[in-house]
Amino acid sequence: MEKRQETIKNLKKLGSKVVGEIDKGENPSLDVPIRTLSNVKYDTTRRMIMMGTGVAKRYFFNVGHVRKFVQTIEAAALAKELNEMGKHLSLREAFYRMKRTLPDSNINLVDEQGESNEAIEDLELITDASRELLHINANKLGSVAGKVVIQDKGDVIDWSKLGSGGWSIPSNVEDIIFKKVDAKFIVYLEKAAEWERLHEDRVWDKLNCIVISSQGQATRGIRRLLQRLSIEYKLPVYILTDFDAYGWYIYSVIKYGSISLAHISGKLAIPNARFLGLTADDIIKYDLKKHLIKFEEVDLKRLEQVKNYDWFKNNKEWQRQINMMKNEIKGKAELAALTSHGISFISDVYIPEKIKRNVWLD
Amino acid sequence: MEKRQETIKNLKKLGSKVVGEIDKGENPSLDVPIRTLSNVKYDTTRRMIMMGTGVAKRYFFNVGHVRKFVQTIEAAALAKELNEMGKHLSLREAFYRMKRTLPDSNINLVDEQGESNEAIEDLELITDASRELLHINANKLGSVAGKVVIQDKGDVIDWSKLGSGGWSIPSNVEDIIFKKVDAKFIVYLEKAAEWERLHEDRVWDKLNCIVISSQGQATRGIRRLLQRLSIEYKLPVYILTDFDAYGWYIYSVIKYGSISLAHISGKLAIPNARFLGLTADDIIKYDLKKHLIKFEEVDLKRLEQVKNYDWFKNNKEWQRQINMMKNEIKGKAELAALTSHGISFISDVYIPEKIKRNVWLD
Repeated sequence: MEKRQETIKNLKKLGSKVVGEIDKGENPSLDVPIRTLSNVKYDTTRRMIMMGTGVAKRYFFNVGHVRKFVQTIEAAALAKELNEMGKHLSLREAFYRMKRTLPDSNINLVDEQGESNEAIEDLELITDASRELLHINANKLGSVAGKVVIQDKGDVIDWSKLGSGGWSIPSNVEDIIFKKVDAKFIVYLEKAAEWERLHEDRVWDKLNCIVISSQGQATRGIRRLLQRLSIEYKLPVYILTDFDAYGWYIYSVIKYGSISLAHISGKLAIPNARFLGLTADDIIKYDLKKHLIKFEEVDLKRLEQVKNYDWFKNNKEWQRQINMMKNEIKGKAELAALTSHGISFISDVYIPEKIKRNVWLD
Repeated sequence: MEKRQETIKNLKKLGSKVVGEIDKGENPSLDVPIRTLSNVKYDTTRRMIMMGTGVAKRYFFNVGHVRKFVQTIEAAALAKELNEMGKHLSLREAFYRMKRTLPDSNINLVDEQGESNEAIEDLELITDASRELLHINANKLGSVAGKVVIQDKGDVIDWSKLGSGGWSIPSNVEDIIFKKVDAKFIVYLEKAAEWERLHEDRVWDKLNCIVISSQGQATRGIRRLLQRLSIEYKLPVYILTDFDAYGWYIYSVIKYGSISLAHISGKLAIPNARFLGLTADDIIKYDLKKHLIKFEEVDLKRLEQVKNYDWFKNNKEWQRQINMMKNEIKGKAELAALTSHGISFISDVYIPEKIKRNVWLD
C-alpha cells in the first residue's frame, strides 16, 4: 500500500510538471535517460551492467518527439490507474489498453507492442519506479520450495508444505512479505525437470535451503525474488546451469544484469551470485565426456561473445573454463547427464560436495 | 502406494514372461501395439483419437528387432527401480540413465533420446501403464487456483490460499488426493498472463471455479489434472485460447487427444471439454476487428489442417467459425485484446456472460 502511494505520488509529480509547463505557456518536456548501447557500461565497482548518465529532452511541440511524448504520458496515466485500482496488467495487455484511437482521427496511440514497451521502459527511467512498481508485469514462470514462510495477498504460505508442485512464482514479487526464513542459501536451477529432481530428493530440507527454478532464462519475477532474498537475508545464491554458453549466459544475466535491462540492474542483478553449474573441470571430474553433445555453430559463436564480455574478460577462472570448453572438451553437456551416476547423484553428491568444498565460480 | 505395487506387478509379469521363454529355449518376444499413423483413428463413439488394434511381435533373436527389444526391457527395469524407490525421472534423465555402455563393448544401449523415448512409449503400450505410472515424468508447467483442497506428499494444500502465485502444477499428478472440491467448473487458459488477470480478479472465488493455465500447449500433467477433475467430480472444463489455428489446436488436443499420444488418449483426453475462447462471432460481438493480427502463411496452413481433422470436419459450428476466420475476419486475435474494453473485462463480462448464455462450442 505504501509502495503504491509512493508510485502514485511519483506519477502525479510527473503530471504536475507537464501541466505546469502548459500553464506557463512553455513547451512541455520530459527528461529521458538515453537507452542506447553507447550509454550502457559494465560498472566495475558495483559489478553490474549499468546505464550511463546521458539524458535527452523530449518535447511535445516537436514533430519527431510528439508521438513518443504522448505515449509516455499515456503509460504514466495507465500506471496511475492500475496503482489506484490495485490491479496489474501484462505488457501485452498494457499494449491493448494503450492502443486507443485518438478522437476524430484514425490514429492509434500505439500501433505495435514495441511502442508501448518502450514507453513503459522510458517511464521506468523517468520515475525511477520499476515496471513492477508501475503494476505492469513481466512473465510468470517457475516454482519454489524451501524453508521459508511468506505472506502474500493476505495468505500465509509455507514453501515447505506444498506437495510435489511447490509455489508457483508470480510475475511480480514486490508485495511479498517474508515472515520466516530458515534457509541458509538458495539453489537456482535452469530447468524445471532438475527442480523436480531436487524437490523429490528434498534437498531443501536436507541442506536447509531454498530451491528455485525457471525454464531457460530467469524471469524478472524470479530474479527479483532471488535478489530480495539475497539482500534482505544475506543468502548466498548458487546458480546451476548446463555446460554450454547459453547456460553460462543465464548465470551472467542473473549476476550482472543484461544490456537490454541495464536501466533496472540495481533492482535485478545479484553481483555475488555463485556459479555451481557444470564447469569444464566437472566434465572431467564426473566423467561426463561420454555424454557430450556436439557444438552447433551458434554455440561457438555464443561462447565467443560470452568470452569477450567485460565481466568475463578479466576473470581468469572463467577464461580458463571457456577455453577448456572450446579447445579441450569440445562439446556441451547437461546437468541431467549426472543421472548416469545415480538417480539422485546431483542431490546426494554433486551439490553438497561442491558447496562443502567451495568450488563454485565467481 | 497401491498404484506402485500394481505397476511393479505389471512389470514383473512382463519380466517373468520373457524369462519363461528363455527357460523353455524359445525366442523371447514382446507384443507391441503398432504406433504408426495407419493404426491411429478418430473413434466417433468415444470421441477421442485412439490407437487401432494392430500388434507386432518383437523378437530377441532377430537382427532387426534386438536393439529395440533390449531397450524396452531396460526401460522396464528402470521403471521397476523407480517405482520401488518411489522416485521419478524426467524423460531426459531417463535417457542418460539408460545410456549405458554394454560390458566388453563400445555399444551404448541407447545413443539418442529418441530411442529411450520410444522404448518408454512402447512400454506404456505393452503394460497399459502410462508414463506417469512408470514414474517417468513429462514437463512441469502451469499454475492453479480455486476452491479445492488437495493432499500431496503428505501436505494438505488449499488452492484458494496461495497468494498471487497459486500452486505450481507438478509434471505428475497421479498421486494427488482431492480432499474437498467446492468448485463447479474449470477454466483453462492458454497463457500465464491471462491466468494472472483472472486470479487477480478472483474469478475462481466470484464464479466458484478453478482457474488453470499452462503456457502454450498443455502439459501431460495439466491435461491429466483437468481430466481427473472432470471425471472424478463431473466438472465442466472450459478452454480459453486465442483466436487462431494454434489456439484452437490446443483445445483440440485437450479434448480429443493427439496423434502422437493416441495410445494414451484414454488417460488424457476430455471429450466433453468446451471451447470458451475467442470465436469469429466474438470478434464481431466484442468489436475486436481493430486488434486483428495479420495471418502468416503458416497460420493459414495450420487452419486448413484443423479444418480437415475428422473431429472438426463433421462439426458444422466449427466449420462455420473456421470459414469465417478465413474468409471474413481474415486475421488472428488474442484474448488479451479484450483488455481494450476494460482492465478486467475478461473476468467481469466475457467469461461470466458466455457461460451464462451457454455460448461455448463443443
